[in-house]
Amino acid sequence: MSADLRTITDLAARLKDLPGPDTDALHAARAREACLTKPPGALGRLEDVATWYCGWRGDARARPTAPQIVVFAGNHGVTARGVSAFPAEVTAQMVANFKAGGAAVNQLADQFGARLDVHALDLDRPTNDITRAAAMDEVEFMAAIRAGWEAVDPAADLLVTGEMGIGNSTSAAAIVNALYGGQAVDWTGRGSGLGAEALAVKTRAVTDAVRCHEGIRRAPLQVLCALGGRELAAIAGAILRARLERIPVILDGFICCAAAACLEAEAPGALDHCIAGHVSAEAGHPRVLNQLRKAPLLSLGMRLGEGSGAALAIAIVQGALACHSGMATFDEAGVTGG
Amino acid sequence: MSADLRTITDLAARLKDLPGPDTDALHAARAREACLTKPPGALGRLEDVATWYCGWRGDARARPTAPQIVVFAGNHGVTARGVSAFPAEVTAQMVANFKAGGAAVNQLADQFGARLDVHALDLDRPTNDITRAAAMDEVEFMAAIRAGWEAVDPAADLLVTGEMGIGNSTSAAAIVNALYGGQAVDWTGRGSGLGAEALAVKTRAVTDAVRCHEGIRRAPLQVLCALGGRELAAIAGAILRARLERIPVILDGFICCAAAACLEAEAPGALDHCIAGHVSAEAGHPRVLNQLRKAPLLSLGMRLGEGSGAALAIAIVQGALACHSGMATFDEAGVTGG
Repeated sequence: MSADLRTITDLAARLKDLPGPDTDALHAARAREACLTKPPGALGRLEDVATWYCGWRGDARARPTAPQIVVFAGNHGVTARGVSAFPAEVTAQMVANFKAGGAAVNQLADQFGARLDVHALDLDRPTNDITRAAAMDEVEFMAAIRAGWEAVDPAADLLVTGEMGIGNSTSAAAIVNALYGGQAVDWTGRGSGLGAEALAVKTRAVTDAVRCHEGIRRAPLQVLCALGGRELAAIAGAILRARLERIPVILDGFICCAAAACLEAEAPGALDHCIAGHVSAEAGHPRVLNQLRKAPLLSLGMRLGEGSGAALAIAIVQGALACHSGMATFDEAGVTGG
Repeated sequence: MSADLRTITDLAARLKDLPGPDTDALHAARAREACLTKPPGALGRLEDVATWYCGWRGDARARPTAPQIVVFAGNHGVTARGVSAFPAEVTAQMVANFKAGGAAVNQLADQFGARLDVHALDLDRPTNDITRAAAMDEVEFMAAIRAGWEAVDPAADLLVTGEMGIGNSTSAAAIVNALYGGQAVDWTGRGSGLGAEALAVKTRAVTDAVRCHEGIRRAPLQVLCALGGRELAAIAGAILRARLERIPVILDGFICCAAAACLEAEAPGALDHCIAGHVSAEAGHPRVLNQLRKAPLLSLGMRLGEGSGAALAIAIVQGALACHSGMATFDEAGVTGG
């Protein structure tokens, strides 16, 4: 199917006709939830997560048993502007660390029983400096979209899309600034740990990038192509594929959400199969979640990327479905209802 | 050792001489955290949780492998005042449900690999109506303290203390109102789901209970005896035992925290080995956490009790220690530091 995705026009067309949840399963899940041995609503957001998940899986008593985490890595020409606390070679070093099992996301994948796949996307060919040119041309962009698409295991039943890319929080800030307006300072954060002076440099880079691509601000997929990176495009491709496979997605932090936001801006409702795993400490993330109308499951001050916040939130989804699908009903347990 | 705990004076004496964390392990854990392949602080609260846990376990690279959840159940004479949405017989019915594996906490225990023990404490002898008399006499109270003490598995390495007891959020509200002052309305919530009228009845019961025991407000252990229930006393006993065994504790919701608050009020620092698993939807819980100066790990609108919120937070602690103890250092991975 990804062979059909050759142009941005193909991608836009695909986004116009997305499947919704299975409403029968959704209603049956809600009916089941009301019969479980607890006061109505007493599991709070776990109840919403459980019924949402059941709706997308088409099973009123579903459980996630095959979560997949995919981490995409890319390099960014904008690093030449001095926007990151770490040098660009760290992207490839961290890919090696993922492959060797040494990063945070590896530990979380192991802890919660998720499969972890890592895709390094042309690390030796950084995207163009977005303050001067489009990050990618259409051919490069669509190749990254397809890489994301193909990375999704159709047998997975829960997906986390993570990223690694020195400089990619600059790219993400430029994307959401372009999509949502305001000033660069509203969207630009400290990334992996910038001081005040470097933050000012980064904010200027975001301003310059948005100005450079002023003409395409109302074309969200063009924004992702011009201001994104390969790993951001791949995240968008993976999220779209998950929708067509009815695989619920847990969104990670600022960079993941910036990529996802382009889909939602192009086709409102495109992220209905996605839940916000956490709100990160990156300054712009709460604003993006607000724009997406997604309330995060976790708020633990994480700001690592790699999909780590969403990987931790896998446990919350597992817990929610364990309760929903495993608990006894009042009738089964012989408990008097309230 | 619990044989020595016969009187409230014995209990107070034990609280005066509590062990602290292993400061060598704590410092070594902090040093390790700084070398892991991530920007400093990028795992947010997971880093604090990890080093806190390592300090209490005396191991700079600890991992929780034997979590224990203990659920205590008790019945409350104050239910005669019409303070709950559910009839008193539900306490015993839910104990049967726990034993049959049908409740929410059973599913969460299974999901996260915790041992679950259930202790029903004299359900056929409800405590006295706290609006008219002390809930327990000293003999009954200390028996419940010892039951909690003995319920803790010394081989556990993480403890959740849960409860079940129709009427016990009235008891908890009276305790924290007595300890912290203010009005009953500040501390009284909807429990398992009261409407406005029943909430007013419950609030009056809390007012009456606090007035009835006005004379002991400055004696926190007496407050727990006079306004608590057997399951609340057992929670306090279990938390104390965990401290002596250096088992970190995840506090659950309003009722668990009200019981724990009596220890902290009696001996400041008595809850240093405890972390707040979540903040519940029960109105008084954020205020209690504020008094205890504990920031919750989760905020998901849960209000079920049973230890369910803390049981879910086991996953967060597991994730934190998986990262801390499993990740590669910059040197090991050959990653350039920031």
